[in-house]
Amino acid sequence: MKILIIGGNGTIGKKLTEYFKQKHEVLVAGRTTGDVTVDISNSESVQKMFDKVGTVDAIICAAGEAKWKPFDELTEEDYYIGFKSKLMGQVNLVRIGQHYLSKGGSITLTTGILADDPVPMTASAAMVNGAIHSFVKAVILELEGNIRVNVVSAGMVADAAEKYDAYFPGHNPIPMQKVVNGYRKSVEGRQTGEIIRIYN
Amino acid sequence: MKILIIGGNGTIGKKLTEYFKQKHEVLVAGRTTGDVTVDISNSESVQKMFDKVGTVDAIICAAGEAKWKPFDELTEEDYYIGFKSKLMGQVNLVRIGQHYLSKGGSITLTTGILADDPVPMTASAAMVNGAIHSFVKAVILELEGNIRVNVVSAGMVADAAEKYDAYFPGHNPIPMQKVVNGYRKSVEGRQTGEIIRIYN
Repeated sequence: MKILIIGGNGTIGKKLTEYFKQKHEVLVAGRTTGDVTVDISNSESVQKMFDKVGTVDAIICAAGEAKWKPFDELTEEDYYIGFKSKLMGQVNLVRIGQHYLSKGGSITLTTGILADDPVPMTASAAMVNGAIHSFVKAVILELEGNIRVNVVSAGMVADAAEKYDAYFPGHNPIPMQKVVNGYRKSVEGRQTGEIIRIYN
Repeated sequence: MKILIIGGNGTIGKKLTEYFKQKHEVLVAGRTTGDVTVDISNSESVQKMFDKVGTVDAIICAAGEAKWKPFDELTEEDYYIGFKSKLMGQVNLVRIGQHYLSKGGSITLTTGILADDPVPMTASAAMVNGAIHSFVKAVILELEGNIRVNVVSAGMVADAAEKYDAYFPGHNPIPMQKVVNGYRKSVEGRQTGEIIRIYN
Protein backbone atom coordinates (compact mmCIF):
# COMPACT_ATOMS: atom_id res chain seq x y z
CA MET A 1 0.00 0.00 0.00
CA LYS A 2 1.02 3.59 -0.56
CA ILE A 3 0.15 5.54 2.59
CA LEU A 4 0.18 9.30 3.13
CA ILE A 5 0.62 10.26 6.77
CA ILE A 6 -0.15 13.90 7.52
CA GLY A 7 1.48 14.95 10.74
CA GLY A 8 3.84 12.03 10.37
CA ASN A 9 6.47 13.70 12.54
CA GLY A 10 4.20 14.32 15.55
CA THR A 11 3.90 12.29 18.74
CA ILE A 12 1.44 9.81 17.26
CA GLY A 13 2.52 10.31 13.64
CA LYS A 14 6.09 9.24 14.35
CA LYS A 15 4.93 5.88 15.68
CA LEU A 16 2.57 5.43 12.74
CA THR A 17 5.34 6.16 10.28
CA GLU A 18 7.66 3.72 12.05
CA TYR A 19 5.07 0.95 11.97
CA PHE A 20 3.62 1.37 8.50
CA LYS A 21 7.07 1.76 6.91
CA GLN A 22 7.81 -1.85 7.79
CA LYS A 23 5.13 -3.11 5.44
CA HIS A 24 4.10 -0.26 3.17
CA GLU A 25 5.36 2.69 1.18
CA VAL A 26 4.91 5.74 3.41
CA LEU A 27 4.90 9.39 2.47
CA VAL A 28 5.11 11.81 5.37
CA ALA A 29 3.49 15.24 5.15
CA GLY A 30 4.39 17.85 7.73
CA ARG A 31 3.94 21.55 8.14
CA THR A 32 7.60 22.29 7.54
CA THR A 33 9.31 18.93 7.05
CA GLY A 34 8.55 15.59 5.43
CA ASP A 35 8.29 14.21 1.91
CA VAL A 36 5.75 16.92 1.19
CA THR A 37 4.63 19.95 3.20
CA VAL A 38 1.06 20.95 3.95
CA ASP A 39 -0.92 23.34 6.09
CA ILE A 40 -4.18 21.46 6.60
CA SER A 41 -5.98 24.61 7.72
CA ASN A 42 -5.60 25.88 4.15
CA SER A 43 -7.56 23.96 1.53
CA GLU A 44 -5.34 25.21 -1.30
CA SER A 45 -2.34 23.78 0.48
CA VAL A 46 -4.20 20.46 0.85
CA GLN A 47 -5.01 20.47 -2.86
CA LYS A 48 -1.36 21.18 -3.73
CA MET A 49 -0.20 18.32 -1.55
CA PHE A 50 -2.47 15.86 -3.34
CA ASP A 51 -1.42 17.23 -6.74
CA LYS A 52 2.16 16.35 -5.81
CA VAL A 53 1.46 13.03 -4.13
CA GLY A 54 -1.07 11.63 -6.59
CA THR A 55 -3.11 8.52 -5.89
CA VAL A 56 -2.60 6.69 -2.62
CA ASP A 57 -4.24 3.72 -0.91
CA ALA A 58 -4.56 5.27 2.50
CA ILE A 59 -4.54 8.74 4.00
CA ILE A 60 -3.90 9.15 7.70
CA CYS A 61 -4.23 12.48 9.43
CA ALA A 62 -2.49 12.86 12.76
CA ALA A 63 -2.38 16.64 12.57
CA GLY A 64 -4.57 19.56 13.57
CA GLU A 65 -4.80 21.92 16.49
CA ALA A 66 -7.42 23.42 18.76
CA LYS A 67 -7.05 25.95 21.55
CA TRP A 68 -6.83 24.86 25.18
CA LYS A 69 -7.90 27.63 27.55
CA PRO A 70 -10.20 28.13 30.53
CA PHE A 71 -13.76 28.49 29.23
CA ASP A 72 -14.07 32.08 30.41
CA GLU A 73 -10.90 33.04 28.55
CA LEU A 74 -11.72 31.35 25.24
CA THR A 75 -12.55 34.06 22.72
CA GLU A 76 -14.65 33.48 19.64
CA GLU A 77 -11.43 33.66 17.62
CA ASP A 78 -9.94 30.90 19.74
CA TYR A 79 -12.77 28.57 18.76
CA TYR A 80 -12.15 29.32 15.11
CA ILE A 81 -8.55 28.08 15.41
CA GLY A 82 -9.97 24.61 16.03
CA PHE A 83 -12.67 24.98 13.37
CA LYS A 84 -10.09 25.92 10.78
CA SER A 85 -7.37 23.45 11.69
CA LYS A 86 -8.39 20.22 13.40
CA LEU A 87 -11.99 20.32 12.16
CA MET A 88 -12.11 21.79 8.63
CA GLY A 89 -8.53 20.66 8.06
CA GLN A 90 -9.62 17.06 8.45
CA VAL A 91 -12.88 17.66 6.57
CA ASN A 92 -10.85 19.08 3.70
CA LEU A 93 -8.65 16.00 3.69
CA VAL A 94 -11.81 13.99 3.03
CA ARG A 95 -13.35 16.47 0.58
CA ILE A 96 -10.21 16.66 -1.52
CA GLY A 97 -8.46 13.43 -0.61
CA GLN A 98 -11.36 11.19 -1.73
CA HIS A 99 -10.41 11.99 -5.32
CA TYR A 100 -6.85 10.77 -4.79
CA LEU A 101 -7.68 7.40 -3.26
CA SER A 102 -7.58 4.04 -4.98
CA LYS A 103 -10.75 1.92 -4.84
CA GLY A 104 -11.44 0.72 -1.31
CA GLY A 105 -8.87 3.17 0.00
CA SER A 106 -9.19 4.61 3.46
CA ILE A 107 -8.98 7.93 5.21
CA THR A 108 -8.23 7.79 8.92
CA LEU A 109 -8.73 10.91 10.99
CA THR A 110 -7.65 11.64 14.55
CA THR A 111 -9.62 13.02 17.47
CA GLY A 112 -9.22 12.01 21.12
CA ILE A 113 -10.89 11.08 24.36
CA LEU A 114 -11.91 14.69 25.06
CA ALA A 115 -14.90 14.14 22.79
CA ASP A 116 -16.35 11.70 25.31
CA ASP A 117 -14.52 12.40 28.54
CA PRO A 118 -13.27 15.99 28.59
CA VAL A 119 -11.17 17.82 31.16
CA PRO A 120 -11.15 21.52 32.10
CA MET A 121 -9.92 23.97 29.44
CA THR A 122 -11.13 21.80 26.59
CA ALA A 123 -14.51 23.32 25.65
CA SER A 124 -13.07 24.07 22.22
CA ALA A 125 -10.89 20.98 21.82
CA ALA A 126 -13.64 18.59 22.97
CA MET A 127 -16.14 20.14 20.59
CA VAL A 128 -13.88 19.74 17.58
CA ASN A 129 -13.38 16.06 18.38
CA GLY A 130 -17.10 15.46 18.82
CA ALA A 131 -17.74 17.24 15.53
CA ILE A 132 -15.40 14.89 13.68
CA HIS A 133 -17.06 11.83 15.21
CA SER A 134 -20.46 12.83 13.85
CA PHE A 135 -18.95 13.97 10.56
CA VAL A 136 -17.40 10.56 9.93
CA LYS A 137 -20.73 8.82 10.49
CA ALA A 138 -22.44 11.23 8.10
CA VAL A 139 -19.89 11.42 5.32
CA ILE A 140 -19.61 7.68 4.70
CA LEU A 141 -23.25 7.69 3.60
CA GLU A 142 -22.25 9.66 0.52
CA LEU A 143 -18.81 8.48 -0.60
CA GLU A 144 -18.35 6.53 -3.81
CA GLY A 145 -15.75 3.98 -4.92
CA ASN A 146 -15.84 2.00 -1.67
CA ILE A 147 -13.82 4.68 0.01
CA ARG A 148 -13.68 4.18 3.76
CA VAL A 149 -13.42 6.82 6.47
CA ASN A 150 -12.74 6.11 10.13
CA VAL A 151 -11.45 8.10 13.07
CA VAL A 152 -9.13 7.04 15.86
CA SER A 153 -9.93 8.54 19.24
CA ALA A 154 -7.23 7.65 21.74
CA GLY A 155 -6.90 8.53 25.39
CA MET A 156 -3.81 10.28 26.76
CA VAL A 157 -1.10 8.58 24.75
CA ALA A 158 1.92 7.22 26.61
CA ASP A 159 4.45 9.28 24.69
CA ALA A 160 2.71 12.51 25.76
CA ALA A 161 1.81 11.37 29.28
CA GLU A 162 4.57 13.27 30.99
CA LYS A 163 3.42 16.52 29.43
CA TYR A 164 -0.31 15.95 29.92
CA ASP A 165 -0.63 13.91 33.12
CA ALA A 166 -1.55 16.91 35.28
CA TYR A 167 -4.39 17.81 32.90
CA PHE A 168 -5.77 14.26 32.79
CA PRO A 169 -5.95 13.13 36.42
CA GLY A 170 -6.68 9.43 36.67
CA HIS A 171 -6.40 8.78 32.95
CA ASN A 172 -4.37 5.72 32.09
CA PRO A 173 -1.66 6.36 29.50
CA ILE A 174 -2.40 4.42 26.34
CA PRO A 175 0.57 2.34 25.15
CA MET A 176 1.69 3.56 21.73
CA GLN A 177 1.29 0.07 20.29
CA LYS A 178 -2.41 0.17 21.12
CA VAL A 179 -2.67 3.55 19.45
CA VAL A 180 -0.91 2.26 16.35
CA ASN A 181 -3.27 -0.72 16.31
CA GLY A 182 -6.24 1.63 16.11
CA TYR A 183 -4.89 3.06 12.87
CA ARG A 184 -4.02 -0.43 11.60
CA LYS A 185 -7.64 -1.45 12.05
CA SER A 186 -8.75 1.39 9.85
CA VAL A 187 -6.01 1.13 7.22
CA GLU A 188 -5.53 -2.62 6.97
CA GLY A 189 -9.06 -3.63 8.01
CA ARG A 190 -12.27 -3.20 6.06
CA GLN A 191 -14.52 -1.18 8.34
CA THR A 192 -15.88 2.26 7.63
CA GLY A 193 -17.70 4.96 9.58
CA GLU A 194 -16.18 3.76 12.82
CA ILE A 195 -15.04 5.76 15.77
CA ILE A 196 -12.19 3.58 16.96
CA ARG A 197 -12.05 4.41 20.65
CA ILE A 198 -8.85 3.44 22.48
CA TYR A 199 -9.45 4.60 26.02
CA ASN A 200 -7.98 1.78 28.10
CA MET B 1 -39.30 30.53 37.06
CA LYS B 2 -38.44 33.14 34.46
CA ILE B 3 -37.55 31.33 31.25
CA LEU B 4 -36.03 32.76 28.09
CA ILE B 5 -36.79 30.68 25.00
CA ILE B 6 -34.68 31.56 21.99
CA GLY B 7 -36.36 30.36 18.82
CA GLY B 8 -39.62 30.27 20.75
CA ASN B 9 -41.63 30.62 17.55
CA GLY B 10 -40.08 27.65 15.72
CA THR B 11 -41.44 24.13 15.34
CA ILE B 12 -40.08 22.94 18.69
CA GLY B 13 -39.97 26.38 20.29
CA LYS B 14 -43.71 26.91 19.86
CA LYS B 15 -44.50 23.77 21.83
CA LEU B 16 -41.98 24.71 24.52
CA THR B 17 -43.50 28.16 24.86
CA GLU B 18 -46.99 26.67 25.08
CA TYR B 19 -45.97 24.25 27.80
CA PHE B 20 -43.74 26.41 29.95
CA LYS B 21 -46.20 29.33 29.87
CA GLN B 22 -48.64 27.24 31.87
CA LYS B 23 -46.35 27.21 34.87
CA HIS B 24 -43.68 29.83 34.37
CA GLU B 25 -43.01 33.33 33.11
CA VAL B 26 -41.79 32.93 29.53
CA LEU B 27 -39.92 35.40 27.36
CA VAL B 28 -39.69 34.48 23.70
CA ALA B 29 -36.70 35.59 21.63
CA GLY B 30 -36.91 35.33 17.86
CA ARG B 31 -34.95 36.60 14.92
CA THR B 32 -37.66 39.06 13.91
CA THR B 33 -40.53 38.55 16.36
CA GLY B 34 -40.98 37.82 20.05
CA ASP B 35 -40.59 39.69 23.31
CA VAL B 36 -37.02 40.40 22.29
CA THR B 37 -35.16 39.86 19.03
CA VAL B 38 -31.80 38.20 18.62
CA ASP B 39 -29.49 36.88 15.93
CA ILE B 40 -27.62 34.13 17.77
CA SER B 41 -24.91 34.02 15.11
CA ASN B 42 -23.88 37.49 16.28
CA SER B 43 -22.44 37.66 19.81
CA GLU B 44 -23.17 41.39 20.11
CA SER B 45 -26.80 40.68 19.40
CA VAL B 46 -26.76 37.96 22.08
CA GLN B 47 -25.21 40.40 24.55
CA LYS B 48 -27.86 43.02 23.75
CA MET B 49 -30.63 40.49 24.28
CA PHE B 50 -29.36 39.64 27.76
CA ASP B 51 -28.88 43.33 28.59
CA LYS B 52 -32.59 43.79 27.86
CA VAL B 53 -33.83 40.60 29.49
CA GLY B 54 -31.70 40.66 32.64
CA THR B 55 -31.48 37.71 35.00
CA VAL B 56 -33.50 34.59 34.23
CA ASP B 57 -33.77 31.13 35.78
CA ALA B 58 -33.57 29.16 32.57
CA ILE B 59 -32.39 29.74 29.03
CA ILE B 60 -33.58 27.44 26.29
CA CYS B 61 -32.21 27.59 22.78
CA ALA B 62 -34.30 26.06 20.04
CA ALA B 63 -32.67 28.08 17.29
CA GLY B 64 -29.70 27.78 14.97
CA GLU B 65 -29.11 26.64 11.44
CA ALA B 66 -26.68 24.48 9.49
CA LYS B 67 -26.51 23.79 5.78
CA TRP B 68 -28.00 20.62 4.30
CA LYS B 69 -26.36 19.71 1.00
CA PRO B 70 -24.83 16.69 -0.70
CA PHE B 71 -21.28 16.26 0.63
CA ASP B 72 -19.70 16.97 -2.73
CA GLU B 73 -21.59 20.25 -3.02
CA LEU B 74 -20.89 21.55 0.48
CA THR B 75 -18.39 24.40 0.18
CA GLU B 76 -16.12 25.49 3.00
CA GLU B 77 -18.38 28.54 3.39
CA ASP B 78 -21.38 26.26 3.82
CA TYR B 79 -19.75 24.61 6.83
CA TYR B 80 -19.13 28.01 8.37
CA ILE B 81 -22.88 28.76 8.32
CA GLY B 82 -23.32 25.99 10.87
CA PHE B 83 -20.22 26.96 12.84
CA LYS B 84 -21.46 30.53 13.16
CA SER B 85 -25.11 29.84 13.84
CA LYS B 86 -26.06 26.53 15.45
CA LEU B 87 -22.60 25.92 16.94
CA MET B 88 -21.06 29.23 18.06
CA GLY B 89 -24.53 30.71 18.45
CA GLN B 90 -25.28 28.17 21.15
CA VAL B 91 -21.76 28.42 22.60
CA ASN B 92 -22.23 32.18 22.86
CA LEU B 93 -25.52 31.68 24.69
CA VAL B 94 -23.53 29.78 27.33
CA ARG B 95 -20.54 32.15 27.32
CA ILE B 96 -22.70 35.22 27.77
CA GLY B 97 -25.86 33.74 29.25
CA GLN B 98 -24.08 32.22 32.27
CA HIS B 99 -23.74 35.73 33.68
CA TYR B 100 -27.51 36.30 33.47
CA LEU B 101 -28.63 33.16 35.25
CA SER B 102 -29.82 32.86 38.82
CA LYS B 103 -28.04 30.33 41.06
CA GLY B 104 -28.78 26.78 39.92
CA GLY B 105 -30.20 28.13 36.67
CA SER B 106 -30.07 26.08 33.53
CA ILE B 107 -29.17 26.45 29.89
CA THR B 108 -30.71 23.93 27.53
CA LEU B 109 -29.35 23.66 24.01
CA THR B 110 -30.77 21.83 21.01
CA THR B 111 -29.11 19.42 18.61
CA GLY B 112 -30.73 16.36 17.01
CA ILE B 113 -30.42 12.73 16.10
CA LEU B 114 -28.09 13.51 13.18
CA ALA B 115 -25.23 13.62 15.67
CA ASP B 116 -25.62 9.90 16.27
CA ASP B 117 -27.63 8.62 13.33
CA PRO B 118 -27.13 10.88 10.32
CA VAL B 119 -28.72 10.78 6.88
CA PRO B 120 -27.29 11.87 3.52
CA MET B 121 -26.68 15.60 3.03
CA THR B 122 -25.94 16.16 6.71
CA ALA B 123 -22.14 16.10 6.90
CA SER B 124 -22.27 19.69 8.14
CA ALA B 125 -25.45 19.46 10.23
CA ALA B 126 -24.39 16.22 11.93
CA MET B 127 -20.99 17.65 12.79
CA VAL B 128 -22.45 20.72 14.45
CA ASN B 129 -24.70 18.55 16.61
CA GLY B 130 -21.84 16.27 17.63
CA ALA B 131 -19.75 19.32 18.47
CA ILE B 132 -22.41 20.62 20.85
CA HIS B 133 -22.68 17.24 22.58
CA SER B 134 -18.99 17.24 23.44
CA PHE B 135 -19.04 20.94 24.27
CA VAL B 136 -21.77 20.44 26.89
CA LYS B 137 -19.78 17.69 28.60
CA ALA B 138 -16.69 19.90 28.66
CA VAL B 139 -18.18 23.23 29.66
CA ILE B 140 -19.95 22.01 32.81
CA LEU B 141 -16.54 21.22 34.29
CA GLU B 142 -15.85 24.92 34.48
CA LEU B 143 -19.09 26.73 35.29
CA GLU B 144 -19.64 28.41 38.64
CA GLY B 145 -22.79 29.15 40.66
CA ASN B 146 -24.31 25.72 40.16
CA ILE B 147 -25.26 26.65 36.65
CA ARG B 148 -26.44 23.63 34.66
CA VAL B 149 -26.10 22.99 30.94
CA ASN B 150 -27.83 20.19 29.05
CA VAL B 151 -28.71 19.52 25.45
CA VAL B 152 -31.83 17.94 24.00
CA SER B 153 -31.23 15.77 20.96
CA ALA B 154 -34.53 14.65 19.47
CA GLY B 155 -35.25 12.48 16.47
CA MET B 156 -37.46 13.67 13.62
CA VAL B 157 -40.12 15.56 15.54
CA ALA B 158 -43.76 14.84 14.73
CA ASP B 159 -44.60 18.42 13.78
CA ALA B 160 -41.90 18.40 11.09
CA ALA B 161 -42.41 14.80 9.98
CA GLU B 162 -44.36 15.67 6.85
CA LYS B 163 -41.55 17.92 5.64
CA TYR B 164 -38.68 15.62 6.62
CA ASP B 165 -40.03 12.07 6.24
CA ALA B 166 -38.37 11.49 2.87
CA TYR B 167 -34.99 12.47 4.29
CA PHE B 168 -35.33 10.21 7.35
CA PRO B 169 -36.51 6.85 5.98
CA GLY B 170 -37.58 4.56 8.77
CA HIS B 171 -37.27 7.15 11.51
CA ASN B 172 -40.20 7.20 13.88
CA PRO B 173 -41.69 10.66 14.38
CA ILE B 174 -41.19 11.76 17.98
CA PRO B 175 -44.42 12.98 19.62
CA MET B 176 -44.09 16.64 20.56
CA GLN B 177 -44.96 15.87 24.17
CA LYS B 178 -41.89 13.64 24.41
CA VAL B 179 -39.79 16.42 22.95
CA VAL B 180 -41.19 18.91 25.45
CA ASN B 181 -40.46 16.45 28.25
CA GLY B 182 -36.80 16.42 27.27
CA TYR B 183 -36.61 20.15 27.89
CA ARG B 184 -38.62 19.81 31.11
CA LYS B 185 -36.04 17.36 32.41
CA SER B 186 -33.33 19.90 31.88
CA VAL B 187 -35.22 22.98 33.09
CA GLU B 188 -37.25 21.56 35.96
CA GLY B 189 -34.88 18.71 36.89
CA ARG B 190 -31.47 18.98 38.49
CA GLN B 191 -29.14 17.24 36.08
CA THR B 192 -26.26 18.81 34.22
CA GLY B 193 -23.91 17.85 31.40
CA GLU B 194 -26.50 15.51 29.95
CA ILE B 195 -27.25 14.76 26.36
CA ILE B 196 -30.96 14.08 26.61
CA ARG B 197 -31.54 11.77 23.66
CA ILE B 198 -35.16 11.34 22.55
CA TYR B 199 -34.91 8.97 19.64
CA ASN B 200 -37.92 6.69 20.13
